[in-house]
Formats: sequence, structure tokens, C-alpha cells
Amino acid sequence: MAMRAPSPQTADSLGARFAEVRALTEALAAPLSDADATVQSMEDASPAKWHLAHTSWFFETFILRDHVDGYALFDDDWPFLFNSYYEAEGERQTRARRGMITRPTLDEVSAYRAHVDAEIIAALPDLDEAPRALLELGLHHEQQHQELLLMDIQHLFAQNPLEPAMVKANPPATREAPGELCWVKGHEGEAEIGCDGTGFTFDCEGPRHKVYLNPHALADRLVTNGEWIAFIEDGGYEDHTHWLSEGWAWVQDNEVAAPLYWRRRDDGQWYRFGLAGARPIDLAAPVCHISYYEADAFASWTGFRLPTEAEWEVAASSLDHMTGNQLDCAGDVRTQPLGPGEGLRQMFGDVWEWTGSAYVPHPGFRAAEGAVGEYNGKFMVGQYVLKGASCTTPRGHSRASYRNFFYPHMRWQYAGLRLARDL
Amino acid sequence: MAMRAPSPQTADSLGARFAEVRALTEALAAPLSDADATVQSMEDASPAKWHLAHTSWFFETFILRDHVDGYALFDDDWPFLFNSYYEAEGERQTRARRGMITRPTLDEVSAYRAHVDAEIIAALPDLDEAPRALLELGLHHEQQHQELLLMDIQHLFAQNPLEPAMVKANPPATREAPGELCWVKGHEGEAEIGCDGTGFTFDCEGPRHKVYLNPHALADRLVTNGEWIAFIEDGGYEDHTHWLSEGWAWVQDNEVAAPLYWRRRDDGQWYRFGLAGARPIDLAAPVCHISYYEADAFASWTGFRLPTEAEWEVAASSLDHMTGNQLDCAGDVRTQPLGPGEGLRQMFGDVWEWTGSAYVPHPGFRAAEGAVGEYNGKFMVGQYVLKGASCTTPRGHSRASYRNFFYPHMRWQYAGLRLARDL
Amino acid sequence: MAMRAPSPQTADSLGARFAEVRALTEALAAPLSDADATVQSMEDASPAKWHLAHTSWFFETFILRDHVDGYALFDDDWPFLFNSYYEAEGERQTRARRGMITRPTLDEVSAYRAHVDAEIIAALPDLDEAPRALLELGLHHEQQHQELLLMDIQHLFAQNPLEPAMVKANPPATREAPGELCWVKGHEGEAEIGCDGTGFTFDCEGPRHKVYLNPHALADRLVTNGEWIAFIEDGGYEDHTHWLSEGWAWVQDNEVAAPLYWRRRDDGQWYRFGLAGARPIDLAAPVCHISYYEADAFASWTGFRLPTEAEWEVAASSLDHMTGNQLDCAGDVRTQPLGPGEGLRQMFGDVWEWTGSAYVPHPGFRAAEGAVGEYNGKFMVGQYVLKGASCTTPRGHSRASYRNFFYPHMRWQYAGLRLARDL
Amino acid sequence: MAMRAPSPQTADSLGARFAEVRALTEALAAPLSDADATVQSMEDASPAKWHLAHTSWFFETFILRDHVDGYALFDDDWPFLFNSYYEAEGERQTRARRGMITRPTLDEVSAYRAHVDAEIIAALPDLDEAPRALLELGLHHEQQHQELLLMDIQHLFAQNPLEPAMVKANPPATREAPGELCWVKGHEGEAEIGCDGTGFTFDCEGPRHKVYLNPHALADRLVTNGEWIAFIEDGGYEDHTHWLSEGWAWVQDNEVAAPLYWRRRDDGQWYRFGLAGARPIDLAAPVCHISYYEADAFASWTGFRLPTEAEWEVAASSLDHMTGNQLDCAGDVRTQPLGPGEGLRQMFGDVWEWTGSAYVPHPGFRAAEGAVGEYNGKFMVGQYVLKGASCTTPRGHSRASYRNFFYPHMRWQYAGLRLARDL
Repeated sequence: MAMRAPSPQTADSLGARFAEVRALTEALAAPLSDADATVQSMEDASPAKWHLAHTSWFFETFILRDHVDGYALFDDDWPFLFNSYYEAEGERQTRARRGMITRPTLDEVSAYRAHVDAEIIAALPDLDEAPRALLELGLHHEQQHQELLLMDIQHLFAQNPLEPAMVKANPPATREAPGELCWVKGHEGEAEIGCDGTGFTFDCEGPRHKVYLNPHALADRLVTNGEWIAFIEDGGYEDHTHWLSEGWAWVQDNEVAAPLYWRRRDDGQWYRFGLAGARPIDLAAPVCHISYYEADAFASWTGFRLPTEAEWEVAASSLDHMTGNQLDCAGDVRTQPLGPGEGLRQMFGDVWEWTGSAYVPHPGFRAAEGAVGEYNGKFMVGQYVLKGASCTTPRGHSRASYRNFFYPHMRWQYAGLRLARDL
Repeated sequence: MAMRAPSPQTADSLGARFAEVRALTEALAAPLSDADATVQSMEDASPAKWHLAHTSWFFETFILRDHVDGYALFDDDWPFLFNSYYEAEGERQTRARRGMITRPTLDEVSAYRAHVDAEIIAALPDLDEAPRALLELGLHHEQQHQELLLMDIQHLFAQNPLEPAMVKANPPATREAPGELCWVKGHEGEAEIGCDGTGFTFDCEGPRHKVYLNPHALADRLVTNGEWIAFIEDGGYEDHTHWLSEGWAWVQDNEVAAPLYWRRRDDGQWYRFGLAGARPIDLAAPVCHISYYEADAFASWTGFRLPTEAEWEVAASSLDHMTGNQLDCAGDVRTQPLGPGEGLRQMFGDVWEWTGSAYVPHPGFRAAEGAVGEYNGKFMVGQYVLKGASCTTPRGHSRASYRNFFYPHMRWQYAGLRLARDL
Repeated sequence: MAMRAPSPQTADSLGARFAEVRALTEALAAPLSDADATVQSMEDASPAKWHLAHTSWFFETFILRDHVDGYALFDDDWPFLFNSYYEAEGERQTRARRGMITRPTLDEVSAYRAHVDAEIIAALPDLDEAPRALLELGLHHEQQHQELLLMDIQHLFAQNPLEPAMVKANPPATREAPGELCWVKGHEGEAEIGCDGTGFTFDCEGPRHKVYLNPHALADRLVTNGEWIAFIEDGGYEDHTHWLSEGWAWVQDNEVAAPLYWRRRDDGQWYRFGLAGARPIDLAAPVCHISYYEADAFASWTGFRLPTEAEWEVAASSLDHMTGNQLDCAGDVRTQPLGPGEGLRQMFGDVWEWTGSAYVPHPGFRAAEGAVGEYNGKFMVGQYVLKGASCTTPRGHSRASYRNFFYPHMRWQYAGLRLARDL
Repeated sequence: MAMRAPSPQTADSLGARFAEVRALTEALAAPLSDADATVQSMEDASPAKWHLAHTSWFFETFILRDHVDGYALFDDDWPFLFNSYYEAEGERQTRARRGMITRPTLDEVSAYRAHVDAEIIAALPDLDEAPRALLELGLHHEQQHQELLLMDIQHLFAQNPLEPAMVKANPPATREAPGELCWVKGHEGEAEIGCDGTGFTFDCEGPRHKVYLNPHALADRLVTNGEWIAFIEDGGYEDHTHWLSEGWAWVQDNEVAAPLYWRRRDDGQWYRFGLAGARPIDLAAPVCHISYYEADAFASWTGFRLPTEAEWEVAASSLDHMTGNQLDCAGDVRTQPLGPGEGLRQMFGDVWEWTGSAYVPHPGFRAAEGAVGEYNGKFMVGQYVLKGASCTTPRGHSRASYRNFFYPHMRWQYAGLRLARDL
């Protein structure tokens, strides 16, 4: 199995969570037309319809097909369409061509969801521990796709020069820009990271193991849009000395001069395109949609650095991962200015935080057996770990040991940064 | 203007034709969902919704905006979306990204069409000669897009492994394979080609001019699917000696082993994917969806050659371009077996015929002034002329002097071949 | 055979010509170091060493191997290295990787040349008609490679920021810029083009056939560098209306703003990089190193057009192809200002002239049998015919019926243009 | 400065080492022709001539130009040619086009070397500490290029189907295949890694810092060619379950089925192409020229894993880095079978060992100031650390804290693997 220590749950409570998660996915997709839900805007993104179907395929395949006697597939041809990357599950639609599938329609995919939902609910009381654990995994899997769905649809809408809004904008926040950042000294010496076996976790979060933390401090808050504009205005994107060599080539090849979705209008004002369309940048809110290259260059410009995964995780282990600006329901999502307070804040919510740690296995890691073993381990090369959670992360999905990961050039996810320093 | 000698027509007759052409476009697109109409399957193809809107943009721009006082654009942002390639009309959505435009929706585009229709009909009685000529041009332009719409949607549906059918299949034709082809001796010596100034023609069809035809003959009919299978089975796709050097590289780079849309099933039977889904190949019907490279290789394999444009046009000049298997209404389209008869047949309809003539200007050609002058002349490089008409060509759109053109590697159009020989 | 009507020659005269042609190749390559002769600067170009060896391979393969009993290959592995594109001759070094062959060395290739020379001279008296015709073909083939060698080495040296000169520069010509161009009315009506069976010709030059020439005139001279600068200064490279659509994309993708090898120094002066290094542009000399796109755009800017192949060939048929600025010996080559005179001038020499005619077969063309049949016919797609000869063309190699051909974007050959107009 | 704690040395001893290092470079390049030394076989590789000149440019720029009064550059144009990647040193020849520089010739570059050598030796007695430290850095820099020169020239010669040998082959080793590998338990708990301030080190090797090692063991020897063949024969390259997702795509896109330079002959025997040409694989010798993807897949196939950098470095810290199969002089280089012995062996020499650790900064790392600060830090993304040394590494150049790094797909370096396991 791809997770460790599935938490024992009653069929009722599991069924209630199942219904809740599935309903949120549908609420998120509700504003989309059939066309909105079908088009693929880049190879890294998937159509919303594909997310809706793929998450259902996961339940159908690993629970209904494998653990429910007599279950017949909703449609024998659909696994080819909706398998993502599980080599063990056979041939599948090429990732880059997911957007070609205009049929089945969005309505047909909704019927598929309803069918799978009904079958799962019916089967639930009789499922034993292994399929229940897979169901749990499926729910966390679906939560990941909720975040991807929001990212991907925002990317698609951003390609449209009409700048359509998917949802109605919330009124702008009115807090003032936070003051100078403060440094919070981190733990020094031996410490433990990795999941501890209580509650659901993905296989890549474990096993729990010891690390050694050298003297360091973390910034008490995230870097803001206002600070990022200072970087831009200081020529940050034009000075090679701040940049990794690969990052500098990326900046030049792609003519990057601001975070993704930032657009400067004729009046000189910066706007950010989001799910609610193009809105003026909120200077006090955390910067978002930056690549690892940009995060590293910004840190270099300040003279500081990014946190390591272990530094971040040890610091976060005593904080409540259920707090912060995370996703609770459909609607406008955006980063929010920091509220009053002290100490490490914004550790969960607003944006995923780039760390300076590559996504490599924890000591003692072993991938799960079977198809679900392809879930994480095979991606452990070339990517960087991001910690925390973002405003597009379903609340409850993330935790201190959670390991999100992206390639250094990617920035369509809600990613920002927190500074760290050696002491 | 981009056409020569616009035929004088009453406002009533022009209005009737306008209504008829516009209605056929909508009938062709009627089976499409919003998603079907939005997705772009390759850079050369456009979404159906784009065709629907672009043809309306043409009327709105060149007639309503330019010739109707006080006309306000339906939407100021839409010209950016729906201009195709008219540099003189300013910036526009990148061709390769037409499929990103999920909004406006198909319904909104339909409303645009209705709006433009009403405005044109209202304005028609007061239009003078220049805008009437542009209206005429717009109708022929829209007929071209009718054919493109069918080609493009077929290409899109072909990307879907479920092989969806857009329309219901007609019952298969039952005629037998035609016998050996017969040679029809062509005119030898001086002749004239190019449009003669009667009726609408595109600028590239003229001026009429003299050519000299060396001794030659044309095949009385098109090459059939059955004959193409003989080429395949003789190793035609594996023997470099039949192929142009560029064609041989194309075959190998793309692993081409049959016409586009041909698929061999496990039972060894060849199927062709068309608007009505995948259907068994009709051996007696003309081969279709071949590139220039393939047409030339086949001719080389037979020891003959392709006709020149002039040979074909002189031969066709006495034939009725309104006959043959052309598009009359929405529904299944496909090539049909040859009926009984003698002499040159299938000259119009079934498939466009590749000629061995490059698409270069006729002697004395000059492009029209203004934006519509970009219609044809700027494409006169690297492409080959195809003559005749296909089963996806609206009847009445083509004629002997018509010059269709595609790059040698293209084959998503309904293109086949007729053999020719030197005498 | 790939040629028609080989001229009867004595072994002595053939041997003398063989020695002369081979010696010129070596004189042209004499200034090159082993490294100069080995590096390949782009896929379209070949290393000088490869030209030296490939031309020898041609004689070795088609004459010594095929027609001389008991001949053993100089080295069994070399045909793999030095076959160009003859599929019938088997596998070969990938074209794009010809520059990887640092060994054999230039000295070893020179030894190969000497070996082949000696064997050919020894065998010559006993060769019958077929191998003599192949020898004749081989000499013309080698002359083509003499021109390619100069083009390719110039391209290589142009990649070097030090701008090395291969040869010593001739003193600049001192003639004044020619006056306004004059129009010379061309033949109107039927005419014949194509080789007439006297003297050596390539297979693609025939057969002789009739054409019809519509009323037209040709400019009496070539377009000059000075006129080209006027085009540049009038914004010719920035105005899409002059350009073919494909040409406009080429200009923008490649940031083209002047002919190849033109460089503007800080003093505003234009320089041209040539075999003798970078030298100031001679305003009176014909413009050179332009693509078809550029030639067509310039003609469009003037309101005129390019000649057709037939117009050019008929006009040239009464002129002496041995005259003009062509290649006689090793040393500096460059276009020269027009001397005094009247009527059509510069028809042979200085630059190859782009025509508006695609390179398609003449009516009745059939490729030669066997490997040498791959010489021309298989390239008859996508390319344009150039007529005349250039200052890098060995004198005597070209003639009125000669058909040179390049893709429209290519411009490392010595190509320019002459204007034509409809009457 | 880019190094820490330069060791105090007399001018004499520094001069002697300078002469020795420079002489080895020239001995390595001695078998090369001008052409061999000029051609660039891929973007990652550089011509040998470029290595010869670039290493001299380093001394000329950072010592003679910056620290010797009145020094005039050997040639003002050459810095443009021979700067590698130092943005602070201005514009430079594009990396991918280094192979275009046929002039200066190899002889001219040799003269440049002699000139720089003489100037350095003359200046040495008067250099103060900073330029002496730069000289020390320059020697280590040149040693890196010695290894690169061998790698690059091998890659170039491997492109030649004639499989030329640069040097005479040593007779094959005759030792038998090593027995089963043994596991050597590693240190558990806190440990220190990173350079300790004694002797020359690169900036990236420090600072020394604490780490925590979880329970693990290292294999006592490297993986052999014989074991790799077992992997191949077990279908290792065809089974996705062993591979990282990115690695699996790399295998398929590049049709990888064996280490680089391995070729299977018609007799079924595996050969390896090396500096001495193609020779039969030595089953007992360590496998070489594998990518990170391959190393990881092999480890996965065995059920074990790669060592981490810290595990390897702690284990190596008590071993003598001057031992093992490393480069002492010009001639044949290759991996050698394991000799008799016990405990960790082959830690230095034969092949660089892929670790599972990404190349990220050590805690507290700060890049050097100035241009030489671009030496290491800016490459710290996307690459993996390799430890040890190879048979192409000049003896004395490497040490336990040395951090070599390559991208996961690269394998033209002498890289192999040692297995590790969790306990």
C-alpha cells in the first residue's frame, strides 16, 4: 500500500468523508462549461473533466474492480482514457493529448462520478481493511486533484485574452503591509522528521528518521508581493549574479520578468490573473506563482537562503496544520495579508513554500507494492520539496510531514517562499 | 478586391444565397457540443467555434464595419480572437492557441452569427457595388470554411481513441470496383487557362493566359482504395525508389504506412475513420487523405505521373463543375465508387486531385489591394495545386480554374489522385 | 544514365579535363588546415574534406568498382563515410554528423584522391562508352562540389568571431554604380526550353519541350547592393506587405534584417564577410546571399516580379555561357560591378538568379536508371529553380538549360536576383 | 575566492606543480591532430583545443591580467573565445558553437600555452597570497579539464564509425571476477562532513558541518560489468518497475539498452569503445558510463539503493585518496578488476560513484566573491553528487569531501555505482 498506518474508521465516518470530498470536487468544477472542462492548456496541466473522471477511475479500479465481486466497469474503454501514469495498469491516453477527449462529455463524466459514488457507498460496509485503506488513499488522492483542478483551470483561463473569471471575486483584504520580518531561531542538533505512524500519510513521508540541524533561523512570515516588487524594481530579473545558471537561462529563454499571472497595465499598475479574473496586486499578501529559480534568486538577492525541508518540518511540527488560509469551499481563492501575531506564522496556507531540499527518498523509504506503489517514489528525481499548504489546498489534506514537489521551473502551483539564514 | 468580375446580383438573390450558405455552416456544426467546437487538434486545424466566428468576423469587418455607417462591433475584443491571418487587421490570437478560447461559448458565438446575419440582411439593400462584391467574397470564404470545418472536426475526433461518430453513417455503396483505367488523350499545343471574367473567382485564378501543353493523356478516373492496397502490399511504403527524398524522410520520421485515418484491425481488415466513425474501406471508392508525397510515390510506382494544373484545367473546362460527389447538406460524407460511363469522370467531387504543379502566380497576377489582398498571394510558396472538388466541398464552390493548395505533407483534406502520362 | 547525349571525346582530352578539374578542387582547398577541412558548420553544409573524398568516392564507385576488373576499394570502410545520399549504395554516415569524422585526416584523403586519380588515368584508355559517360558525369559532379566547397567553407569561417580570411583579397573594383535598369522585352508566344542533346547535360535539364511565354520584359542587369540598402532603409524587412506569409515568419523567427554575411559596424558601414574576410560592401556590385523570400519581397517592393525559368532560359539561349564573372582559379571570389554595355547582361556569372519557378520535372522527364538516377529527380519538391551561374561556379559548368535549385530559405549559395515584369 | 584555506607553498614548489600539471595536459592532448582537437561532438563536450586554451585563459585572466602590472593580453580577441561561463567576464562564444573555431590552430594554442607558462613562471616569485591562491585554484581547475578532455575526446572518437583509437591499448587485466559483495556497516549517528580547512578545496566542499547517519551499510566494492550484463539479460532496460519515471522516459526516448559506448557485435560479444578503441568488455571490471537513471534502476533491481553523499564521505574519510586506479600519465585508461583485499575498496579510482544526494549547498555555504564565485554555486540545481575519483581523474585532485556533479541523464563521464542498504 502507498500509505502507512491507515487510521481505523467506521464505515459511516468513512462514507461521510467520502461524500464530503467528492462533493467539494464537484462544487469546484460547477462553474465550468463542457468546453472549459475539456481543454488542456499545457502538457503539465490536465482538463477539469479529466480530473473528475480520473479520481473516479482510481476508486473504480483499485476498490470496485479489485475488491468488489461481480463489479462490471462503467465503460470498458474509459480506463484507457483516465489512467494517469500507472504503468502497471496498462496503456493509456498520452498525457499531452488529454485535451483531445471531447467525448465523453462533462455530463457523461458526471454520471460516471454518480455511478462510482453509489457503488462505493453500497460496497463500503463490506470492505475489509485493505480496500478501506485504499479508499482513504483515494480521498487524499482526490484532494490533490482538487488543488490541481484549480491550478489547471486558472492556467487555461489565463490563456484567454478576454481574461474570463471562473468565480466572483471576494472583496479585497484591507490589512496593512506587515513590518520587517523577524527571525525565529530554529532547533539545533538532532531531531526527527517524517511521519510518525498516526493518521494517514503518503508513503514518501516516511519513515520517521533522525536528522541533524545546523544553527539557523527562519523568517516569521512569507515574502510579500510588495517585497517582490522591490526585487523587480531593483533589477532582480536582469542581474545574473542572483541566479542559478539554469535559472538564468530559464529567465532569458522565457523572457521572465515577474511571477506567473502578473501583468503590468498601461497605468503601470501590476495586476494578477486569478480564478476571479485580473485584480490589482495586494502588496501585503504573500507572493505566489514563482518558480524555484525565482525563489532562490530572491533569497540570494536578500543575502539569505531558502529553508531546508528538515528545518521547516521540525519548526512546523508543533503548529496546527488545520489553521491558515486553506481551501474550505468553492469560490475565490487568493493569498491573504498577514494578520496580527508573533512567531512563525503562515506556515500552513496561502502558499506552498519552496525549500532548498531536493525530493529524494527519506532514509529507509520503500515504495508500496503494486500499482499504487507508483504513486510517489518514481518521481524522486529532479524536483524540489515544498512544504506547508496553499489557499488551494483542501484544509486537512496537508501536515508537517507532507512532501509536495515540483520541478524548479514550474510555477502554476500556488508557491511562494519564506527566508531562512545560517546562524 | 480579391476577386475579379463580381457578378451583378439583386439584393434579394444575394440575400437568399447569404441565408443559404450561413444555414449550411450551422447545419454542419449542429452535431457538435461546446467542447467539440472548442478544441484544436493541431496547429493546422482550427476549432469549429472559431470557424463559426471567423466567418462572421469577415462579414462584420469588411462590410458592416467598413461600409455601414454607425455600426458598432458586437464585441470590441472579438476581432483579436477571430482574425485569422490578416496582418493589416492587427494583432490576433496566435494560430496555435485558438483552442484555448473556451469563452465565448458556442452559444455566444451562435448569437454573434445571428447578430451579423440580421445586420447584413438589413444593410444589404443599401450596399453599393464594392461591399456587395465583398459579400460575395465572404460567401465563398465561408464555403471554404465549411470544408475546413469538416476536415478539422474529423481530425479532432480521430484523436479520440473511442472513435466517436459525428453523424450517422450512410449505408455502404454497393458498386463494384471499376475496371482497368483508360487513358484519355489531352489537348496538345496552345491553350488558355485561368478564369475568364465571368462569375465569381478568387484573385489567384487569373488572369486568363496562354500555356502550351505537350503530348499527354489523363486517366479517365481516380485511383481507388483497392489499388492503394495493392501499393501497400507491394511494399510501396518501404521502397525508397518510389519516393521523393523529402517524402522518404517524411515516411520514416512519421512511420507512415497507409493513408491518414486508415487503421488495420486485428482481423487484418482496413478501416477508415470518417465523420461517421470507423468503417470498413470501400475498395471501389477513390483513395483519400494522402499527401503529395504519397500521390507522387504511387504515380512513380505505376510508372506514370501526376497531371499538371494546366493539363487538368484544360481537360476540365468543358465539364460541368456542378456534378459529382460534392457537399449538398450536413450528414455523412465519403468518397463513392465510380458509376458507369465513359471518358473523364470524377473530375469534380469525391477528392481534390493533387497536381504536379507548384502553387505559383499565374502570369500577370496581382494581389488585391487592402487586407483582402492577403487572401491568396502571400501563400504562393512551397505548396502544390489541387484541382477539382471533394465530397466535402460545397457544390458550386469550385470550378475548373479553382486553385486549391496544400503543403506536400498535408493530408487531412480530402485529397486523392488521378494518373497522367506523357505521350 | 543521369545525363543525355554524352559528347564523344578522346581518352586524351577526357583525361586532360579530368586532371584539370581535379586539380582545381585541390587548389581551392589548399589554404585549409586539417581542422578547417573537417568541421561542419550546419547540416546543409559539408566539411571540405568530405567534398574532397566524396567526389573521389563517386569515381571510385561508379567507374573503378563497377567497370574496372579486379579493382579493390582503397578502404572498405570509406564508402560508408563518403556516400552522400544514394540510397541504392547502402547505409551511410548521417548527413548532420559528417563533421565528426576527424579521421581519416586531410592528408589521408589527399592520398585517396591521388590513388583514385592514378587508377582512373590508368583505366581511361580501356573504358567503353558507359563508364566514359559516368566519368563525364563525375567531372560535372565534382564541379558542383567545387562550388559547394567554397560556399561551405565561407559559412564555416563566418561562424568564427575572428573573421578569418581563407584567401587574400583582390583590390576593390572601381566601377561606378550602374544607372537605372532598362527593360528588355522578352520573346512572346511559343518557344522551346530544355537541353537539346548536344553536349553534356544533367537529366533534369531535359527533355526539350515547348512552352508559351506571355508578354514580359526582363531587367537588363542584376539588382545591386546599393539598391538593396535602399530596400533596407525603406523598412523592407519590417513591412509584412512585401512578404510571402512563410517568408514573413522566416524573417521574424530568424531576426533577418540584411543578406547573409552582412554586418553593420559601429560606424554604420555595411561589411560583407567573404572568403577574403570582412570587406566593405561594394554598392555597385550585385547583391548576393539572399533567400527566395528576400528576392520575392524585394521584387514585390519594386512592384515587379521574378522571372520565370522559361523566360530566363529563352532569353539566355543566345548568350555565351562561358562569359561573365565565373570561377577560373583559386583565390578571392566576389560579385563585380557591371561594366559598360547594353542589353541583357550579367546573365552568367556573379550570382545565381532566383526564378519564380518551382523545381518540378520538365514534361517527359524520366530519371536515369540505377544509383545515379537519384541525382536530381528525387529532389523535385519544395525547391525553386535558379538560373545562370555565380562567381563560385566553375566556368563551363553551367549553361542556359542548367537548373540549379535551393529551398526558399537557403542563402549560403551565391544567389541574387534580376527583376522581370508583365507587359 | 572560490577555495578555502589555500596551503602555504613556496614559489618553487608551486612552480614545480604548475609545470607538472601543465605538462600532463599537453601529454594527454599529444596524440590529437588539429582536427581531433577542434571538433565538438555535442553541446556538453568541448573541443580539446578549447580545453587547452581555456585553462590558459584562466591563468592569464585571473593572475596575469589582474595581478601582474603591465601584462598585455596574448590576443585581445581570445578571451571572447575561451571564457567558459563567467558572466562577470563578459560576452563569450556560445557553448554549443565552440567547435566552429578552426582558427586559432592547435599550434597557435600551443604557443599561447607556452607564453602563459613563461609569464606565470616569471611572475611567480613576486605574487602575493591572493594570486598564489588563484594559481592553486587554476591548477585544480586545469586538472578538472584534464578529465574533461579525456571524456570529450572519447565522445568525439565514438561518433566515428571507424572507431579510431587515440592511444595504444594496455594488455587486458587478468584478474577473476570478484565474489559476492560484502556489506560494510557504516557509522550510525552524528558525524561531520565537508572540508576541514587543511589543504586546497573548492568552495562547495565546505563548510564542515554535522549530519546524522541512519543505520546503513555500504557494499565493499563497485558493481561490475558482469553484474550489469545480468541486469541487461534479466530485462532490466525493459521493465518500468525498476525505473524512475523520468528515467523510463529517457530510456524510451533514447532507446537505451546498455551503458554508453557498449556495442554488441554480431558474435553476441559486448565491446566497449574507449580511448584505445573498441575492446571486449572485462566482466570483472567496474561498470562505467552509466547515468544516474541507470544507477538508480540497477539498485532498485537488486532491492538496495545508492549511498548518500554523507554516508559515502564519512566512510571514505579514513581512506587514502591517493590510492586506487587514477590518472598518472597519458595512455590507455580503463576500469580495472578488483584486487585481493577486504573492507571498503575501490572508493577512489576506477569510476565516480553516483550518490542518491542532490547537489545542493552545504549548510552555511557561501559562494566566493567575484568572477571565480561562479565556479560552483550557480550549478547547484538539478544535478547529483558523485564521490570518489575515476581512472580519468588526475591522482591527487580528488578527496573525501570532493563533490563532483552531473545531471541525471549524463554518462559520458567515468561514472559507476556502489550499492548501499538500510539496516
